[in-house]
Amino acid sequence: MTRPTLRDVAARAGVSISTVSYALNDASTLPLAEATKEKVRRAARELGYVPNGVARSLQARASRAIGVILGKPLTLPRYAAVVEGIARGLRSDGFRLSLLDETGALRGVDDVRAGNLDGLVFIGHDDQGVPDDLRAAIVEHGVPFVAIDCGVGSGGERYATVDFDYATGVRQVVAHLRTAGVDAILYVRPGIDSPAEDARALALRDEERESGVVVHTLTTSVTVETIARFDAGDADRSHHDDLVDRIAEALADVGSRPEATAIVCAWGVDAEAAYRAASTHDPRVRVASLAAGSLSAQLWPRLTYSRLPLEEGGREAARLIVASTRGAEADTVAPEHVSLAPALDASH
Amino acid sequence: MTRPTLRDVAARAGVSISTVSYALNDASTLPLAEATKEKVRRAARELGYVPNGVARSLQARASRAIGVILGKPLTLPRYAAVVEGIARGLRSDGFRLSLLDETGALRGVDDVRAGNLDGLVFIGHDDQGVPDDLRAAIVEHGVPFVAIDCGVGSGGERYATVDFDYATGVRQVVAHLRTAGVDAILYVRPGIDSPAEDARALALRDEERESGVVVHTLTTSVTVETIARFDAGDADRSHHDDLVDRIAEALADVGSRPEATAIVCAWGVDAEAAYRAASTHDPRVRVASLAAGSLSAQLWPRLTYSRLPLEEGGREAARLIVASTRGAEADTVAPEHVSLAPALDASH
Repeated sequence: MTRPTLRDVAARAGVSISTVSYALNDASTLPLAEATKEKVRRAARELGYVPNGVARSLQARASRAIGVILGKPLTLPRYAAVVEGIARGLRSDGFRLSLLDETGALRGVDDVRAGNLDGLVFIGHDDQGVPDDLRAAIVEHGVPFVAIDCGVGSGGERYATVDFDYATGVRQVVAHLRTAGVDAILYVRPGIDSPAEDARALALRDEERESGVVVHTLTTSVTVETIARFDAGDADRSHHDDLVDRIAEALADVGSRPEATAIVCAWGVDAEAAYRAASTHDPRVRVASLAAGSLSAQLWPRLTYSRLPLEEGGREAARLIVASTRGAEADTVAPEHVSLAPALDASH
Repeated sequence: MTRPTLRDVAARAGVSISTVSYALNDASTLPLAEATKEKVRRAARELGYVPNGVARSLQARASRAIGVILGKPLTLPRYAAVVEGIARGLRSDGFRLSLLDETGALRGVDDVRAGNLDGLVFIGHDDQGVPDDLRAAIVEHGVPFVAIDCGVGSGGERYATVDFDYATGVRQVVAHLRTAGVDAILYVRPGIDSPAEDARALALRDEERESGVVVHTLTTSVTVETIARFDAGDADRSHHDDLVDRIAEALADVGSRPEATAIVCAWGVDAEAAYRAASTHDPRVRVASLAAGSLSAQLWPRLTYSRLPLEEGGREAARLIVASTRGAEADTVAPEHVSLAPALDASH
């Protein structure tokens, strides 16, 4: 039996061959009525028409799939939001998202060279940017590549980057707290060095100098090592209990009036312990964090987030990687570096 | 120039050809030292050795990729946890996860037939099980397939299934609350019908009859329609504000002693509003939910979750789909149906 062709599908669906082609092509930007698409797909299914993806990708070397390298569990909301943004962005361009972990990054380069993937997106985190060996392989083989949240932004990278503007987030939060009458801040931050933590600490120091607010710093027990254990799934989160106690103790030392005091957490995940500590210490103490946490700012009074545009960042990364897979002239065009500012999310 | 072979890589790395083969094969279960693997990979990179994945998959019809169909945003923690479990499970078997949305489900079937994917996992939700047209295509073409959380579990499916035992979760929570002296429950549930909601409501009715606890029901403003708008990203979550007020009002009607009263939410996401309502109404009122919510049960007193084993369910789905891609005898073996019970997560 001969294999059904586009022409057979068109005849069965009662549409033109080009309509069939558009309807079956995920990447087509031609607007077709959903009913038409569905009619074509049904005809294709009924005839057993199979677009031979493997043969096609051998010819075109285009798998229409992007490898997304994430060294973190999706159960951390921050990374889930970035991946969701990338997935949505890719989908709207007819690309699929293939999830890789960090140990699979270099094999991802092989997959691009073998035509199984069209490009790679690397999602940075904590103290981790693009690993040197991955960077070298990318550059050597001209792999379409985008890095998001790697805290570089120096503009010198040979690939496109998306970053969050942490310093602006700090300024927004401090300005908001100052307006609310706050003159003393307990700053709760993890015991790790990273471009993001450095940018925040620096901006906070500037604010202290310029706005006159007094900043006390409390370093949590979170280190690069505890993070690794947590990501592997064999650490409990019980440091939260300690954290409540430590914050409560530190609040006593901050020694300002409760209504003029705020706890500012670098990490959204610590805002819950901070809120718990504040609500037992003195419910007039405000809580803010430099990334959104799990408590709803709409539900709990005196809670403020600097909300990072995570999904938007993911969409930007998708846009950039798709553009990168298209540009054979990539070497001649300077890569784009996007910086996204957070937005304030304050309780009523 | 001739293309480098496995032999060339072995010579450069100073290892045997079979070691190279194992080291470059993601699916190999042979334990190799990470240093050896790295040495082989480096040699392969330096020589420009490319495993021709496309040609290989044409021969073997094995892409070593599984399409995971999710019609929900990953920003909902429940689905992120299931996807994380699937990704980890697949990874340990050398498979990759390719993320598909619901509109791409039927094209996923085409991709399996074309050899771009090895099988499909469908993640159910709310009122949505495996769509009829997808089920028909799966059965017709013998596509390796697993459905998770589709609330069927009748055992009649022609494919493997993973489900959560919601009824057991209800019994655990009620028993826990009874022990704590609770005799009146305000049950907060969405206005949707689904196998999960039905199983919960039924189990709660049984508990009411058998344990003598009195149950009042409050139906939230969440319907299938509001869910769709929320998933599309254009609904705000402000129903939470209303919900706090409505729960506070309803608590007044429950008319038991506060220390003998509990709010039980069907959805984890509503537990935060319930906790807020309880803390303003009377902090002695307990809060529980039949799925974990965002508040930490370790931090907030009188909070109890029935925690669904979401990641474990994802791992089970990965195990079953990998087995399914291996079994050419799939038609002769009855598909496996896994049911996982939740565990109680109560505050100190």
